Amino acid sequence: MRAMKRIKTAIVGASGYSGMELLRLLLGHPGVELVAVTSRQEAGKALAEVFPRFCKAPGSELAFMAPDPDEIAATGAQVAFLALPHGVAAEIARALLERGLRVIDLSADFRLNDAAVYQEFYCHAHPAPDLLTEAVYGLPEIRAEEITAARLVASPGCYPTSVLLPLLPLLREKLIDTTSIVANSMSGVSGAGRKADVSLLFCECNESARAYGVPKHRHLSEIEQELSLAAGETVVISFIPHLIPVNAGIATTTTARLREGVSPDAIGAALEKAYAGEPFVRLLGKGGCADTKNVTRTNFIDIGWHHDPRTGRVILTSAEDNLGKGAGGQAVQSFNLMFGFSATDGLQNF
Amino acid sequence: MRAMKRIKTAIVGASGYSGMELLRLLLGHPGVELVAVTSRQEAGKALAEVFPRFCKAPGSELAFMAPDPDEIAATGAQVAFLALPHGVAAEIARALLERGLRVIDLSADFRLNDAAVYQEFYCHAHPAPDLLTEAVYGLPEIRAEEITAARLVASPGCYPTSVLLPLLPLLREKLIDTTSIVANSMSGVSGAGRKADVSLLFCECNESARAYGVPKHRHLSEIEQELSLAAGETVVISFIPHLIPVNAGIATTTTARLREGVSPDAIGAALEKAYAGEPFVRLLGKGGCADTKNVTRTNFIDIGWHHDPRTGRVILTSAEDNLGKGAGGQAVQSFNLMFGFSATDGLQNF
Amino acid sequence: MRAMKRIKTAIVGASGYSGMELLRLLLGHPGVELVAVTSRQEAGKALAEVFPRFCKAPGSELAFMAPDPDEIAATGAQVAFLALPHGVAAEIARALLERGLRVIDLSADFRLNDAAVYQEFYCHAHPAPDLLTEAVYGLPEIRAEEITAARLVASPGCYPTSVLLPLLPLLREKLIDTTSIVANSMSGVSGAGRKADVSLLFCECNESARAYGVPKHRHLSEIEQELSLAAGETVVISFIPHLIPVNAGIATTTTARLREGVSPDAIGAALEKAYAGEPFVRLLGKGGCADTKNVTRTNFIDIGWHHDPRTGRVILTSAEDNLGKGAGGQAVQSFNLMFGFSATDGLQNF
Amino acid sequence: MRAMKRIKTAIVGASGYSGMELLRLLLGHPGVELVAVTSRQEAGKALAEVFPRFCKAPGSELAFMAPDPDEIAATGAQVAFLALPHGVAAEIARALLERGLRVIDLSADFRLNDAAVYQEFYCHAHPAPDLLTEAVYGLPEIRAEEITAARLVASPGCYPTSVLLPLLPLLREKLIDTTSIVANSMSGVSGAGRKADVSLLFCECNESARAYGVPKHRHLSEIEQELSLAAGETVVISFIPHLIPVNAGIATTTTARLREGVSPDAIGAALEKAYAGEPFVRLLGKGGCADTKNVTRTNFIDIGWHHDPRTGRVILTSAEDNLGKGAGGQAVQSFNLMFGFSATDGLQNF
Repeated sequence: MRAMKRIKTAIVGASGYSGMELLRLLLGHPGVELVAVTSRQEAGKALAEVFPRFCKAPGSELAFMAPDPDEIAATGAQVAFLALPHGVAAEIARALLERGLRVIDLSADFRLNDAAVYQEFYCHAHPAPDLLTEAVYGLPEIRAEEITAARLVASPGCYPTSVLLPLLPLLREKLIDTTSIVANSMSGVSGAGRKADVSLLFCECNESARAYGVPKHRHLSEIEQELSLAAGETVVISFIPHLIPVNAGIATTTTARLREGVSPDAIGAALEKAYAGEPFVRLLGKGGCADTKNVTRTNFIDIGWHHDPRTGRVILTSAEDNLGKGAGGQAVQSFNLMFGFSATDGLQNF
Repeated sequence: MRAMKRIKTAIVGASGYSGMELLRLLLGHPGVELVAVTSRQEAGKALAEVFPRFCKAPGSELAFMAPDPDEIAATGAQVAFLALPHGVAAEIARALLERGLRVIDLSADFRLNDAAVYQEFYCHAHPAPDLLTEAVYGLPEIRAEEITAARLVASPGCYPTSVLLPLLPLLREKLIDTTSIVANSMSGVSGAGRKADVSLLFCECNESARAYGVPKHRHLSEIEQELSLAAGETVVISFIPHLIPVNAGIATTTTARLREGVSPDAIGAALEKAYAGEPFVRLLGKGGCADTKNVTRTNFIDIGWHHDPRTGRVILTSAEDNLGKGAGGQAVQSFNLMFGFSATDGLQNF
Repeated sequence: MRAMKRIKTAIVGASGYSGMELLRLLLGHPGVELVAVTSRQEAGKALAEVFPRFCKAPGSELAFMAPDPDEIAATGAQVAFLALPHGVAAEIARALLERGLRVIDLSADFRLNDAAVYQEFYCHAHPAPDLLTEAVYGLPEIRAEEITAARLVASPGCYPTSVLLPLLPLLREKLIDTTSIVANSMSGVSGAGRKADVSLLFCECNESARAYGVPKHRHLSEIEQELSLAAGETVVISFIPHLIPVNAGIATTTTARLREGVSPDAIGAALEKAYAGEPFVRLLGKGGCADTKNVTRTNFIDIGWHHDPRTGRVILTSAEDNLGKGAGGQAVQSFNLMFGFSATDGLQNF
Repeated sequence: MRAMKRIKTAIVGASGYSGMELLRLLLGHPGVELVAVTSRQEAGKALAEVFPRFCKAPGSELAFMAPDPDEIAATGAQVAFLALPHGVAAEIARALLERGLRVIDLSADFRLNDAAVYQEFYCHAHPAPDLLTEAVYGLPEIRAEEITAARLVASPGCYPTSVLLPLLPLLREKLIDTTSIVANSMSGVSGAGRKADVSLLFCECNESARAYGVPKHRHLSEIEQELSLAAGETVVISFIPHLIPVNAGIATTTTARLREGVSPDAIGAALEKAYAGEPFVRLLGKGGCADTKNVTRTNFIDIGWHHDPRTGRVILTSAEDNLGKGAGGQAVQSFNLMFGFSATDGLQNF
């Protein structure tokens, strides 16, 4: 085991569920020195007071501070993770970039290349359109090189990650009919955030399963952007998210028709070619069905596939932790690339 | 409130979850006198000993008996509900029919018209192919008249009910492209039965979501049979069941492409036309999303729909209790038809 | 089945979980005509809009109205159930009593005989001390006669019911040492109410078990009042409530030392003597352990007991639905007494 | 970070929930080289096939082998963790000790000093009474020195750990009346093991809370042994375990009367004195209530306390992960002592 440099790191907006997962990961990361955690509403409180879970974790003596860019910069932070609502992240991202920090943003603010699409899906003008070209959509399995050099990483959403990783290789190799894609996702309740809302109460979610956000969930915009880039043509899909009573985890089932003449075996081959060397993608092979219980609290995404000769469709199942590979873990993956750490540093938890 | 005749009724195979729900419903049905409940393994035990929940329910002093057709007939039973595994139900159904009882079978044994399809999906020869033509596929919203007169009702499965009811009107009116149908269902764990199996343990299902039975779940055979009958052509679909950590409830999301020239409004109109007068179908209208928590322990199925102009697809969401409308409740609905009761007798629980 | 008179009935404060359970029960009660349901925040909305679960239930076409005593009285209501927060119920109770209605209050406002104890435990002056002598603490198994004649019933809390019913017979017969009583309760999350509060979010309660309200939970005041009345001496106990991740249900385990010379068999005898004829108390006998899953959505309370010769203690376990026997069901039990219905009318659901 | 020696380690009986947690911890322990994992029923299968969760974890390429002592010894293993049922562990423990391995046994086989007590509570003769004097009851906070030198550690049960750690300091300092102790515990379902048993099915445990094992649960024997040793007198207590629907976690609430003349503040002082320097005990102080959600998947035990002047009782709440501090984590704590690692090596996960 080598002695490791420690990067001075800030988490901005650390009192929600994504922030909590970032805390869990970064407190345990051997290459991280946590120098600032911010929360407007918890400012002044010790980290362990807000999250008793982290009491006695080395580093947990830190106190929450208000999200002031100058004060964050004054801690010497070299990088900031932003776990803020969309629309709020952009402004502080700009301020931190101006102060010389690199930024890994977990919100949706920098995920789209096109401010008009942002306006269409988020229903307000983009708060910082000039930064969109610079931002890198941070799927490490797809854009490792750009992430390594990035000043501003837009870390993908939880649904998009679970939909994109199984599909991208198939689109790149033109194996499936791009008009035939239907993705159904089931998400744990933490994906809806840590906000006082009657619809998120225990008794409203327990013993319940329901679709929502149909037919045009906000995440659809980044999903289609990335699918289209991979396919080399405009891809429009059906995406139906559902809420189920688990704390964490997303299971996604995607169906699409094979293009004429394509052998089903090409599916497995494309997935292997794309991900065989990837430390956080586990291919379950033909006939495998991904289960969220195998990935919760990890940075893994599990992917299995089936072919149905009766319908000519391929069925892709994927599972990830919405807070892990779908949020905090993936952001740490980018961090490792950006600061020269091994891919699995700080992410070896099971 | 009228004085009600009481039909002497047997439940054969009453120790599983469907049997338990039948018990719950029939113990409270004003037109039922429960005269026999059978269970090979619980024979001799009082009903309330096996199901403490029913202790002090009027009628719960009954004891389980072995499933002997002569002894069942000797109780004077006029009708028997069978809640047995497929392959086992057929034989006892025949014996009871021969002894003059009418039979409502909750297994898959009589749901298919074609013994060859049974063999294909259930992997063994059909145990009573001669009875297949007589048996009525018991969807009361579709075949009330035939059920009313039936000696042998094959009560539909839980998945099929949730997939069929939203789709049948659209197929009958030729509104959707029959090759474009994809149905994703999420089921509570009771759907897998009450059997000692490690994969059904609390810790294996809690905090888990997973697809299974892909790509050719057994229920697909009856789904496609009924869809084809409604469409007047062979319909082949993709159906992907999932297990989620709730006791009961099925939520199904079905997508299909509108046929060219069909107005989206035709969807709502077709559903209204089919179900406006039905006591157990609740139409949530355009934009409604069905939630299992509104239907558990009832005989309702909730159906909502959306149209996505971007993809040309309609999105149907449906929710039912897999043990209610998906099993016991639906069987009681047939019973009410067969014995001249009101549709909602014994099913007015919320 | 007899033709049943129908009592015009109001529910005041029907948008919380207790109100929802009252709705469920009263919509199905053959002797109830629901004429008014109130909710300040839902006023104007149809009942089925707020609770989609009740859509198509006969009577569910009613709309919520504001809780105005004159308007409630104008509906002809003969009785009102109040499911309001403590401190709020007293005022409207008085107004309704003045307008000639009988009142069944599910809040804590009229449960204590002594306004000073109210002040001690609820930390504000009692809002209607003059009504305290008139109000009847509505445990039907203990005070059926007084309830029958009452104008104002204070329906007991969920914790008190689960603690009192097992203990009262033992205290009346002086079987246990009154200084040795320790009661531990585990409650479903619905007991905490339907309010937007971060601590009640799904992800804060799921996979969590925790004590709270220690050492002086508000319900302790009514528990000790009733225990003392039964014992004929002041009884002070330890009571520790816990929150566990179930929607509904309370399981209570109570330990107490047998008095010197008392035979353990006297415990079973006292319980039998008190409850053998009671329709909603199910005695599990010596060695029985109550399980909430057998009582949810019913008005039953299950009670089992053990004797431990090593410690000289008796161990009582009880289980009820906190919204059923612990709230709505018990209130309906009082209603049945007050208006001359059979004990089980409207409460025969399992 | 120092280069760490690696101890060749075996896990015997690695296919249950405790075995799975040991796997999780030891795969991530920088001082462990896993050389053997055994399971009679999974022999021959790869670790990741049985536990897909561990796929791609470094070390997970290992295959299960049969539990043959010679073959285990042939791997060069220096230490074996035993996660076997009681009665089965003793024999293999002896065989491994004879082959020069040190043994950390997670079963109940070596926890009692007295074979007669074992016979009383486990209902069969002790399988290896001669080893009882050598075995060290492995509570690291209490017996670090003996554990460090031990050949055979009997790692404490999950319930005992949660009951003992709060009580031992109070008994050692004679602060509480030893005849007044009542402990109520709520346990996650994983505590019941990974066995195909109808009572452990999802639908039997979900939405359920129940006491069991009353009044003389097997773990009571080791609890009273250790309490008596600390008190210097025989201590007999009431202990009531409950099953609640969470995967993991134990919350224990213990009440006891303060001895006459003892100041309540002595409670906090005794806890501080005992545990202030302990890395895995987190004292929540007076008024703190332990919550299982803060300790799951960690080796922490949280302890809070209250004093109730009305009853003269102290109320202790404790929370731990039944598979962590209550099983696998605690065993690793002993391992760290036995092989000279830092207390927190391999246990820094949150």
